[in-house]
Amino acid sequence: MKIPYGGDYNPEQWPRAVWEDDYRLFDAAGVDTLTVGVFTWGLTQPSYDKYDFAVLDGIVSRAVDGGRKICLATGTGAHPAWLAASHPEVTRVDFEGRKHRYGARHNSCPSSPVYRRLSTEIARRIAERYAGNPAIIAWHVGNEYGGACYCPICAAGFQEWLQKRYGSLEALNEAWYTTFWSHTFSDWSQIEPPSALTEHWRGPDHTAFQGITLDYQRFMSDALLANFCDEKAAIREFDSSTPVTTNFMGLYRPIDYHRWAAHLDFASWDNYPPDDRSAARMALAHDLMRGLKGGAPFWLMEQTPSVTACRDVNPLKRPGVMRLWSWQAVAHGADAVLFFQMRAGRGASEKYHGAVIGHSGRSDTRVFQEVAALGAELSALGSVTLGARTPARVALLFDWDSWWALEISDGPSRLVRYLDVVTAYHRALWTLGVDLDVVPVTASLTDYDVVVAPALHMLKGDLAERLSAVAARGGTVVSTFLSGRVDEDDNAFLSDVPGPLAGLFGIRIDEWDARDRSHVNPVAIGAATFPARLIFELVIPEGATVVGTYTGDFYTGTAAVTRNDHGQGQAWYVGTALDQAGVTSVLRPILAAHDLLGPLADLPDVETATRVAPDGTRILFVLNHGPSPAPLPAMTGIDLLTGAAPPARLAPNGVLVLRAS
Amino acid sequence: MKIPYGGDYNPEQWPRAVWEDDYRLFDAAGVDTLTVGVFTWGLTQPSYDKYDFAVLDGIVSRAVDGGRKICLATGTGAHPAWLAASHPEVTRVDFEGRKHRYGARHNSCPSSPVYRRLSTEIARRIAERYAGNPAIIAWHVGNEYGGACYCPICAAGFQEWLQKRYGSLEALNEAWYTTFWSHTFSDWSQIEPPSALTEHWRGPDHTAFQGITLDYQRFMSDALLANFCDEKAAIREFDSSTPVTTNFMGLYRPIDYHRWAAHLDFASWDNYPPDDRSAARMALAHDLMRGLKGGAPFWLMEQTPSVTACRDVNPLKRPGVMRLWSWQAVAHGADAVLFFQMRAGRGASEKYHGAVIGHSGRSDTRVFQEVAALGAELSALGSVTLGARTPARVALLFDWDSWWALEISDGPSRLVRYLDVVTAYHRALWTLGVDLDVVPVTASLTDYDVVVAPALHMLKGDLAERLSAVAARGGTVVSTFLSGRVDEDDNAFLSDVPGPLAGLFGIRIDEWDARDRSHVNPVAIGAATFPARLIFELVIPEGATVVGTYTGDFYTGTAAVTRNDHGQGQAWYVGTALDQAGVTSVLRPILAAHDLLGPLADLPDVETATRVAPDGTRILFVLNHGPSPAPLPAMTGIDLLTGAAPPARLAPNGVLVLRAS
Amino acid sequence: MKIPYGGDYNPEQWPRAVWEDDYRLFDAAGVDTLTVGVFTWGLTQPSYDKYDFAVLDGIVSRAVDGGRKICLATGTGAHPAWLAASHPEVTRVDFEGRKHRYGARHNSCPSSPVYRRLSTEIARRIAERYAGNPAIIAWHVGNEYGGACYCPICAAGFQEWLQKRYGSLEALNEAWYTTFWSHTFSDWSQIEPPSALTEHWRGPDHTAFQGITLDYQRFMSDALLANFCDEKAAIREFDSSTPVTTNFMGLYRPIDYHRWAAHLDFASWDNYPPDDRSAARMALAHDLMRGLKGGAPFWLMEQTPSVTACRDVNPLKRPGVMRLWSWQAVAHGADAVLFFQMRAGRGASEKYHGAVIGHSGRSDTRVFQEVAALGAELSALGSVTLGARTPARVALLFDWDSWWALEISDGPSRLVRYLDVVTAYHRALWTLGVDLDVVPVTASLTDYDVVVAPALHMLKGDLAERLSAVAARGGTVVSTFLSGRVDEDDNAFLSDVPGPLAGLFGIRIDEWDARDRSHVNPVAIGAATFPARLIFELVIPEGATVVGTYTGDFYTGTAAVTRNDHGQGQAWYVGTALDQAGVTSVLRPILAAHDLLGPLADLPDVETATRVAPDGTRILFVLNHGPSPAPLPAMTGIDLLTGAAPPARLAPNGVLVLRAS
Repeated sequence: MKIPYGGDYNPEQWPRAVWEDDYRLFDAAGVDTLTVGVFTWGLTQPSYDKYDFAVLDGIVSRAVDGGRKICLATGTGAHPAWLAASHPEVTRVDFEGRKHRYGARHNSCPSSPVYRRLSTEIARRIAERYAGNPAIIAWHVGNEYGGACYCPICAAGFQEWLQKRYGSLEALNEAWYTTFWSHTFSDWSQIEPPSALTEHWRGPDHTAFQGITLDYQRFMSDALLANFCDEKAAIREFDSSTPVTTNFMGLYRPIDYHRWAAHLDFASWDNYPPDDRSAARMALAHDLMRGLKGGAPFWLMEQTPSVTACRDVNPLKRPGVMRLWSWQAVAHGADAVLFFQMRAGRGASEKYHGAVIGHSGRSDTRVFQEVAALGAELSALGSVTLGARTPARVALLFDWDSWWALEISDGPSRLVRYLDVVTAYHRALWTLGVDLDVVPVTASLTDYDVVVAPALHMLKGDLAERLSAVAARGGTVVSTFLSGRVDEDDNAFLSDVPGPLAGLFGIRIDEWDARDRSHVNPVAIGAATFPARLIFELVIPEGATVVGTYTGDFYTGTAAVTRNDHGQGQAWYVGTALDQAGVTSVLRPILAAHDLLGPLADLPDVETATRVAPDGTRILFVLNHGPSPAPLPAMTGIDLLTGAAPPARLAPNGVLVLRAS
Repeated sequence: MKIPYGGDYNPEQWPRAVWEDDYRLFDAAGVDTLTVGVFTWGLTQPSYDKYDFAVLDGIVSRAVDGGRKICLATGTGAHPAWLAASHPEVTRVDFEGRKHRYGARHNSCPSSPVYRRLSTEIARRIAERYAGNPAIIAWHVGNEYGGACYCPICAAGFQEWLQKRYGSLEALNEAWYTTFWSHTFSDWSQIEPPSALTEHWRGPDHTAFQGITLDYQRFMSDALLANFCDEKAAIREFDSSTPVTTNFMGLYRPIDYHRWAAHLDFASWDNYPPDDRSAARMALAHDLMRGLKGGAPFWLMEQTPSVTACRDVNPLKRPGVMRLWSWQAVAHGADAVLFFQMRAGRGASEKYHGAVIGHSGRSDTRVFQEVAALGAELSALGSVTLGARTPARVALLFDWDSWWALEISDGPSRLVRYLDVVTAYHRALWTLGVDLDVVPVTASLTDYDVVVAPALHMLKGDLAERLSAVAARGGTVVSTFLSGRVDEDDNAFLSDVPGPLAGLFGIRIDEWDARDRSHVNPVAIGAATFPARLIFELVIPEGATVVGTYTGDFYTGTAAVTRNDHGQGQAWYVGTALDQAGVTSVLRPILAAHDLLGPLADLPDVETATRVAPDGTRILFVLNHGPSPAPLPAMTGIDLLTGAAPPARLAPNGVLVLRAS
Repeated sequence: MKIPYGGDYNPEQWPRAVWEDDYRLFDAAGVDTLTVGVFTWGLTQPSYDKYDFAVLDGIVSRAVDGGRKICLATGTGAHPAWLAASHPEVTRVDFEGRKHRYGARHNSCPSSPVYRRLSTEIARRIAERYAGNPAIIAWHVGNEYGGACYCPICAAGFQEWLQKRYGSLEALNEAWYTTFWSHTFSDWSQIEPPSALTEHWRGPDHTAFQGITLDYQRFMSDALLANFCDEKAAIREFDSSTPVTTNFMGLYRPIDYHRWAAHLDFASWDNYPPDDRSAARMALAHDLMRGLKGGAPFWLMEQTPSVTACRDVNPLKRPGVMRLWSWQAVAHGADAVLFFQMRAGRGASEKYHGAVIGHSGRSDTRVFQEVAALGAELSALGSVTLGARTPARVALLFDWDSWWALEISDGPSRLVRYLDVVTAYHRALWTLGVDLDVVPVTASLTDYDVVVAPALHMLKGDLAERLSAVAARGGTVVSTFLSGRVDEDDNAFLSDVPGPLAGLFGIRIDEWDARDRSHVNPVAIGAATFPARLIFELVIPEGATVVGTYTGDFYTGTAAVTRNDHGQGQAWYVGTALDQAGVTSVLRPILAAHDLLGPLADLPDVETATRVAPDGTRILFVLNHGPSPAPLPAMTGIDLLTGAAPPARLAPNGVLVLRAS
């Protein structure tokens, strides 16, 4: 038992002779796991009434013969050309109202009955054929589900979804506030998908009716989930136990992964960070993925060993970076480390995407050597981290509904982006070295000492009560500007801002200013001042203590940051977008008060993360993301990668996997 | 009798209990006038053959019971969902050729027979029901008419409009210069709306045939006007006297408000300036609106008390600014001061738009307090300004045809924007404190000493003669680059530039240079030099005196600014885009020569404006838009807001309403 | 015999009286050649079954009577309105999938049978009518062919074109690498034009399947070529000898002019450079055009005498620039100098486009005077340059397939643009004063000492062997990053980068980095360092000598520039985008070694070019593009423009036409 290592492998693109080269190189690199079949629908069903598994049989057999474990895909990452030609309904209508024809991938209308029937059928046949093969350790359904469709079939599906949600048009009209702009619907059939041809006026985020757009996002996420569930159910007809997953995309807005999570047996995701300064962001995404299944380990399903292809500029991962980021994934809960892709394709849009084996088939490249070295490390590590969990006392709330509602809102500011706020608060926690869980707003908060809820725009269910309970029992709650504004239907609360949270924070907000990015109003917190930008809520204390004040404009001296005693704990509110140092300065004393500062909190480039194995073994990962060697304090334990005690300095890109001694 | 004060009120969005809160707060704020029913079509006609006025009855009754005056809307600001569903023809086809379905507002095809019939009918029924109610002081038709439709019904309407305009295809082909690019039309039915699918190549301003595009703009303005006239005629069936208006949008390009003006009983408009440095721009817009009806007072139909919602960034009006801008409107001719909106809606795209009463319903907010304070001031002021007119001796020509022709022109420069030129010349006049009228090119010019015609690209009718007459009798005419270029059909004059104006200005122009914004060619005027940009006409004097010369490039020393004696007066020509100081330096001596400099012309941030009441009372408004207190010279009169003599200093955002003593 | 001088003339836009003015001014300007009829289709065929040549007869007669030579167009630069109305198939479907209706120009679907039949017929009738008129010196087919259509007729045409190219779907699937993303086509009818509705995801350059998009570009270029060939064949029915051309657009990506060239009797093009710093770029375009027909002279079919109209900003050609650029064209092989246009149109989108005769009809304008002066010079020059050829020993490879393949590639960098690379290498050669040919990759290379192949992304046929042969016999080959990557189908070579060129250059490349424009990695070459940007190939010498090394990042000290001895010559490889000085520093010693540095290589603003007349007369053109007088070394010969010996200094915009004495 060890961490599965390998990745996406498409031998159907190559003659058999190349396969033999591949397996020789897999051996050299310690590759034990192959994801196969992700785009094989056209291969396994070459026409409407013909199925042909000869090639896939060969691929599976060769893997079995080679002693590999298999993550077997259903192949529905893209539909075949014949299907689009014979059943045009399977292609999507886009946001601009344009009916697409055959091409690309992610191209299936999720509501199309033909698509649903045939994608289910191919999954069923594959499961029927390969279930029971002991090499198969997971089923991989679809691929990077995403996008949206606005076709008439989806419109009907939306209407049906709305009937289930609202029961009556009266309820729907009230939820959508349709009296505004004479929008009352008198028949379900009048409801259109919100698009450039209906409610939207400057792209997907600019809508006349937020409620309609918000519900369509929810519907489309559910519609795509139904596709996943279709295929999973078909697999379960033949295999009751092998886990089923699909590869997520981390911080991906269109799909509410929290709503999907219950339907996956384990989470997995593809890590393609925007740039090489993304260590904190990747940590957030890993924690979000781990949080999908209540803290259970996930798979790193894809990462590039070297370069991406689809970006405008595709920089190369420097030496050591692929290893560092692989270990970061493990540190945050990954129980598999997989690449896209094992061998570089010759043609089409990913021919320049990095691969373990390049076009020349060499094993003496830097990239192959690094892959092989990591393979050896993972083999040496063995099973110690498998199933380990993160012992977090801090929760960061993450909510797709708030993400959507905030970013489709007209006013106060389009410049406030949900992820910017969340990542600022996460980065502060990450820099301060605390282990944290990223959880949905429905998660139990009873185990956390600190709960951070940035830009909690929409407040649903009993969350206000549960947050109050955190403070009441001695915990600390932190929230920010633009929280507590709207209910589940995106209708404003008819009370003081921040709505049901006003009491917890001991404040009210009557007005707020928004300004361009260039406008700065420094906020004084104690002896320090921090630039604040974009939005400035004029916070009126109603019991809270003023911690930070604006130093400019007509509201100079009024509250920007407050702290309210609540029960045995506290609730902090930050009414403006402080810069990163400002956010960190707010969070540091809070963590300190709960004794939650990380062991290396003063080394901002050095990340720490803890996992506790099922047998109780506690493992501390230490990763140096900085450009310089980091001096380490005396630390106990043994580095599982070297078998030695931890060194006094950790090299750039260096990794320690310390088992408590 | 006093200035009506209040604004848009949508109680149909609320339960009755809230209405009572509203009226209590209206009392507290001195609100006496409510605009109701702007988006009630779906409410009053819930299906094709059903009308239901119960809610609107209640709204009107409650207002009457509360002693309010009513501006009653026909409710056609948006059409109902059932109408789009049952009659898809009512929705528009956009510039990209996309047929829209139900959504948003401003969504009706103006040419649709069903839309025209039903919108007229709802106006008729509302007029029938409510005409004679003494609380109704105005009818409000539609809402912010605008946009454009490119559907087949509009295409047919366009062809019909063209037949009326041109009489024959021969005349049309000549006007459109269709011999160019083999474009001769041999049948009216061949003519398409100019769009992204026909003549346009990079958006609405880039057309292969300016004549076609120009005529479509004229047609569409007329088509929307017909919708207004439909409803007005229906109202007039039941009410022969109460004035009818619709709310304009100030400097709004798509609609030629001059062509509409004759059909309105009074002008009204919605003032949403782009930023808080817009004092001069708002003054221009107010003067333009006043000029629509020959100087008669207009209504400020909408302004926000605090923030907008639809901008990317929606800054807050600082304390005092709402009051200052309200008085500015009155200073320029407003006889009503109204807000959008009285109570903030809960949902959809304007839930964050500012309102007199916010979501929490408080009266102790800063915004409510300022609204109430202004209400008290207006009540105290009483009727003195009602019906007052502006005694202007300066006219600024404003022409939608020139606006359109200039901005759809290929060459010389897309960077020259009509409003930039107009606002530069207006700002200079405004800074210099002169009262001015903004008038159409058809206006009588006989009462003006100075006529300024910036970027008078298109020269129509007898305007050249009338401008010459101004100079001949001792007045001064000022024009600029890109004037006198084309005739009514956008065909170049076959004579020296500036066409029929060449004689008046005593110049000719053979060539012109255009350069990027970063390129500066300083112009020397007397001892000073001013940066000039974008376009450089090489002005050849043919009798004119050279006032300013270029100091750079191969045309160094040639004329950029000229003055020509004509009769007893003068004609000035400015051949390049001088910076603001340059424009002001040209206009200052002209105003001085006519003894027209304002009393505070040396205080650039302090605006003055005069109104003369029907009884001859002369009122001088003084408004400080600057950040600092302004020292005032000794001024006679009494400040109607305080009852005191004018102070020695005027605070920032300060307002004086001085009645000559 | 002299250089034809004149240009596009559209008297059909004017009454006859104006024609007489025109001819008087033509006489004054030395205009002897008129291009007529470019947009006359609607005039000569006013309806489906009616042809009317009365006006065109008059135009031709008047030109003949005036003693002018005629370049007679078929008039198909735009189709008539009645054709689009009666046969909607003739209009295009655009990349976004939108069916266009009548408007603009370049508006015909090249595959439409009706369009093909009628455009051929009008060409046939014009040829029939005017063939044999001795004034006609050339036929001008269509106008600036370009753009693309994505309609169903083109889809069928594409499928047919593919069947011819590939023979079988098996071959097509392999070429397009369709196993990737399950794209296997099982019927030709499944193949769609690649567009925003099928394979593309962010505009025309972002495709999921490069092979499909690449073939569509090839197909569309061929489809438009077929239109040209249709008309040419019709002309040839009546005129077997007068040369036929169409006006190209220089560095125009959508059409592979190399594939077209064989079908033209001579090349001609329209020179509208992007700005007034385009001397080198124009030289490249001239040389490319000359290279189309193996070095034979071409026509400068259009240039503006003063300004363009369609740009956002249309700057004026400074005094002397029109003359300088006209002579530059001649220096590079032009045997005609023609303007667009002779008289400025009154209306539509080119009314502000520069013309020899402006709207006022004056002859005392600067522009007219300069045109007349050049006319006199050309008359004085006579026939000496006619038919002269350029004696080049340097070849620059230019390849539309590489252009397309590079710019539609996903990865490594969208910031690398083919023309940027080509123009950098061309500019270096141009600055160094060497005469060069710009040739297709299929050209014979046996006559060249130096062959420069920038960004030779796609390597086709036996080119690798022919390049090796250049070096083998003592020549020098230069290539750059991103060369030798893909085969004719855009599939990566399964060998070391740069593929079949690896041996010639003695290198291999395993990995490459790409970075934003702001990122610089200086390259050390000898004692100098040069900034390098965008892409950094890590070059591993396999026999080559390291000439330049990176000085930054983890690959510091590794090879960026290499030189490999091959046979008696050398092959240089530049693995990164050096700045202009860096490129020049690489090429200077290479030219020097072959004794190919120009006589004025140290005067960067002074261009030289040589032509050798059929009688052996050698003419050296010297052109000063700089802002200052250039000191000239002692040069022999006589300046044909002055009859004097060459001066010691050449004024800005100055031109010498030196005949060796």
